[in-house]
Amino acid sequence: MIDVYAFATPNSVKVPIALEEMGLDYTLHSVDIRTGGQKDPVFRALNPNAKVPVLIDHDASGGPLVLSESAAILIYLAEKTGKLLPAFGAPRARVFEQLFFHGTAMGPAFGNAGYFQKFAPERIPHAIERFLGEANRVTGVLDALLAKQKFVAGDEFSIADIVNFGWLWQREFVGVNFDATPNLARWFAELDARPAFRRAISKTTALAAS
Amino acid sequence: MIDVYAFATPNSVKVPIALEEMGLDYTLHSVDIRTGGQKDPVFRALNPNAKVPVLIDHDASGGPLVLSESAAILIYLAEKTGKLLPAFGAPRARVFEQLFFHGTAMGPAFGNAGYFQKFAPERIPHAIERFLGEANRVTGVLDALLAKQKFVAGDEFSIADIVNFGWLWQREFVGVNFDATPNLARWFAELDARPAFRRAISKTTALAAS
Repeated sequence: MIDVYAFATPNSVKVPIALEEMGLDYTLHSVDIRTGGQKDPVFRALNPNAKVPVLIDHDASGGPLVLSESAAILIYLAEKTGKLLPAFGAPRARVFEQLFFHGTAMGPAFGNAGYFQKFAPERIPHAIERFLGEANRVTGVLDALLAKQKFVAGDEFSIADIVNFGWLWQREFVGVNFDATPNLARWFAELDARPAFRRAISKTTALAAS
Repeated sequence: MIDVYAFATPNSVKVPIALEEMGLDYTLHSVDIRTGGQKDPVFRALNPNAKVPVLIDHDASGGPLVLSESAAILIYLAEKTGKLLPAFGAPRARVFEQLFFHGTAMGPAFGNAGYFQKFAPERIPHAIERFLGEANRVTGVLDALLAKQKFVAGDEFSIADIVNFGWLWQREFVGVNFDATPNLARWFAELDARPAFRRAISKTTALAAS
């Protein structure tokens, strides 16, 4: 049995997408970050870093596993099922390279670009310029890659596509669009149409409905 | 034969540390980021994202492998040698969790806290407060973890320790210290004294000497 604690966020959506793509059953639980649910002591006991998503695999070898960090969760699920992560060599290394490209470059740029445009207590032009500029730079790097190959880590669909999808799914919050990145637009539309993505997005969006 | 393109930076130092800990031979090449060396077309051909470090393994199975993203490089080296990354189960998942905790939380917080204090064209109190506050929050999360266990991913030394070490090695740039984090101070001092760390830090520091 797998439980997922999540909300309608760019990082959360990756986990249901991966679970749907891998054909694993799971129960999704809402942690309402609008009211600080991720800072609740009960949730902090699951993740002291106070971030969604968290996965609990009650059937993990060695006993129940409580795991945070969306990309680490996807690696765990990929290795559990033998799906969406090549077993060795350059194709495997490319997936990890993309997971960290997203985690260290794209995620923080998108998150901070959105924060300084939507949530900051004052308008700070230099911060907006810095992070929105970086968000557009990294989407350009991905676009150039997708001009040469079908998916972000090569010609096979992998967990690296799911990870990069999360923030692009929420690109309006950030003020990023696909006008100058046609290859990225093609890749996004293909993923967005996959039945597993449709099911996961619908369930993740519903977490914020109540 | 392994080549490493790097500079005296928090992300670069991780790769020589891992290579020294694993007992692999390598040649270190300086990419001077003070003069924009990472944006040079020759370097961009190795990494279109224009960031150090980059590793080239000329003896990779399937032909030479050119790889970016320091944490992805460490995973590749760990799987190549069978060292510093548990083979399965919860201990393995904890290493990945820590790699992404560092990549998505600690690295961006430290990098931006340093940028807004040292490099930004104007003093922006809210940005400094945001990123320095986050840098101190995440060091607190690590400190609490290290109160309960010897290393960041459990009681075994792993690539997750090397990854978290990089930015803490450059903590003065960020304005972070260990006054309120005694467990982190204990862990850092232990790593810093390891012979492999000493050798790697010496070689990495020398990259900026010329």
